[in-house]
Amino acid sequence: MTPPRHLPASEFRNRIRRLLARQRTLRLDAILLVTPVNRYYFTGLDASNGVLLTEPGQTPSFHTDSRYLTMARRLAPWLPCRALWRPADEPAVLAGMGAGWRRIGFEGRMDAARFLRLRAALPDAEWVDVTAETDRLRAVKSPAEQARLRAAVEANDRLFAELLRGIRPGMSEWTIRTLARREADRMGQGEAFDTIVCAGRNAAEPHHNPDDTLLRRSQPLLIDLGLKLDHYCSDMTRCTVFGTPSRLFRELHGIVLKANRRAVRAIRPGRLCRDIDALARDTIARAGYGAFFGHGLGHGLGLEVHETPSLSPACATVLEPGMVVTVEPGIYLPGRLGVRIEDVVLVTGSGCEVLTRTPHQIGWS
Amino acid sequence: MTPPRHLPASEFRNRIRRLLARQRTLRLDAILLVTPVNRYYFTGLDASNGVLLTEPGQTPSFHTDSRYLTMARRLAPWLPCRALWRPADEPAVLAGMGAGWRRIGFEGRMDAARFLRLRAALPDAEWVDVTAETDRLRAVKSPAEQARLRAAVEANDRLFAELLRGIRPGMSEWTIRTLARREADRMGQGEAFDTIVCAGRNAAEPHHNPDDTLLRRSQPLLIDLGLKLDHYCSDMTRCTVFGTPSRLFRELHGIVLKANRRAVRAIRPGRLCRDIDALARDTIARAGYGAFFGHGLGHGLGLEVHETPSLSPACATVLEPGMVVTVEPGIYLPGRLGVRIEDVVLVTGSGCEVLTRTPHQIGWS
Repeated sequence: MTPPRHLPASEFRNRIRRLLARQRTLRLDAILLVTPVNRYYFTGLDASNGVLLTEPGQTPSFHTDSRYLTMARRLAPWLPCRALWRPADEPAVLAGMGAGWRRIGFEGRMDAARFLRLRAALPDAEWVDVTAETDRLRAVKSPAEQARLRAAVEANDRLFAELLRGIRPGMSEWTIRTLARREADRMGQGEAFDTIVCAGRNAAEPHHNPDDTLLRRSQPLLIDLGLKLDHYCSDMTRCTVFGTPSRLFRELHGIVLKANRRAVRAIRPGRLCRDIDALARDTIARAGYGAFFGHGLGHGLGLEVHETPSLSPACATVLEPGMVVTVEPGIYLPGRLGVRIEDVVLVTGSGCEVLTRTPHQIGWS
Repeated sequence: MTPPRHLPASEFRNRIRRLLARQRTLRLDAILLVTPVNRYYFTGLDASNGVLLTEPGQTPSFHTDSRYLTMARRLAPWLPCRALWRPADEPAVLAGMGAGWRRIGFEGRMDAARFLRLRAALPDAEWVDVTAETDRLRAVKSPAEQARLRAAVEANDRLFAELLRGIRPGMSEWTIRTLARREADRMGQGEAFDTIVCAGRNAAEPHHNPDDTLLRRSQPLLIDLGLKLDHYCSDMTRCTVFGTPSRLFRELHGIVLKANRRAVRAIRPGRLCRDIDALARDTIARAGYGAFFGHGLGHGLGLEVHETPSLSPACATVLEPGMVVTVEPGIYLPGRLGVRIEDVVLVTGSGCEVLTRTPHQIGWS
């Protein structure tokens, strides 16, 4: 029940300093950051509109509309804020400011139409997608960020323990989800994503939307949830049974847990993300369920619930100390059963630390 | 505490039929819909990944990944669903399917990088931004949608009344916001947007983020909130005072209310959106506060909290029966005071109906 705490201004200034260093290497005359999450990452400002402009040798500046100007000046007095950036005026403003820019960094996640308008305003400049650069900066968490992620995961462990005490067979998925949301509001600042609650065969849909389905005794229950605390996300999946689990469920749970542990043991600086994915995938394939693990093994976690790097067959990123990833192998038998076990892992100097402390056991009741 | 109710399949098939009619007029060989809200609008499917493809003379088809396939087939049996669309494969898949497409409709709100990849896969085709078309379809609400919006606004009125009963001077903005979130979960399916709660001078920031500021007796309190019910959004702003309002507050409240009522009285089919905005703006300007009303008068409301049309100085849209808009004039004196009064209005055949029933009075206690 407390609002998200702000990080000190030094944290944001450091981030901008790292960005400017990359910007010089890439010889970019300007970088325009427009997505809410990157605006927040580099300025600490929460706003639905605004542009952070960085130019080598210049003070960075924040351009927003009247709704956010007073707040921006109050919360980021170190950052010059100007009220000149309205969506409709943007191309003209940019054409005026950027007459001398030859290479401009933009975010590939900005709206296509907005990008096409901006590019048309400065058609002679070369436009460079800097998404991979900002993703890479955000992937390695500072000590302050690690502390926040640790606190978010710890609060999520407490949330899950509290939630389990409130669940009874006979409740609907939706009721359980509502309880989870309430706890996420109480222990953090709400959910990092819509809590997934699957009773019985609904768990065969990895991203099932909770509905009126009632949880029955001895049926598997899959819960995938994460609260947000002080801007940082947590994420965890557990499968449990109130009553007696079936033999098939126990078998799948054992395989998935083995895959999870094998991947975690391999996480250390210098390893390729796709190799970690391959280890878990191999465990599931050897058990005969390779065709039923359709998603990647995990993803980076930070301000957003899905960040760089991705623990997937396609990801050639090398793990570095300070990266935080989820490890979440799963097996889904359509119309029948689904199991996923997800933990949050911090890459340390010599290996890794599993931040999630909730046990992996099946039975709790 | 119930999950969102699904609309009948006929509703979505009608929407696709209207889209295909526009598609023929625009001579588009294919339209690719990729944003979550448009995917939902045309299919009824909630998923974080997927593409709806429509081609004249063909059955529309939905392409998603393994996480959503089972769900999609269960919830939309009328819609062929295929598991071939993963982000990395998308350009190659598209190049294969679209060899004969000359004109392709895309969404301007899709990611710029994704658009650039798709366009590079079919470089000879002409790419047409269809955002204005889909926005226009969504702007006019069907009878089923009007019923849902009506129910959402009605629930929001009840939420506000319940919330007011729980508020006491001495509470923090954050505590009040948490109460609002809880009620939004109880009476709907959560907030349509982060509730704005401003105590005292914080209301001078139109989109202030609630913090530890305590509400003091006789200080103004601004609350801007909307719950989501069965996928549709509500939105309302009220300013109130527990205790004795200042003279300045009463003066501004009176002006803003006058502007709100003047705009509402003018809303009817055939009027230009910008003319409605101008009427409210004129009332505020005549009172001497024209420089302190920096945002548009209102916006469309539906699946999203900001939709087409916009009641703003730039919007040349003509109002039509079935459109639903907010009317929310405001006056913001930086560092001092802010007032906004917002209602939801349905354009009817002959005029309009104010759906919001919460009274406009200042004092409640």
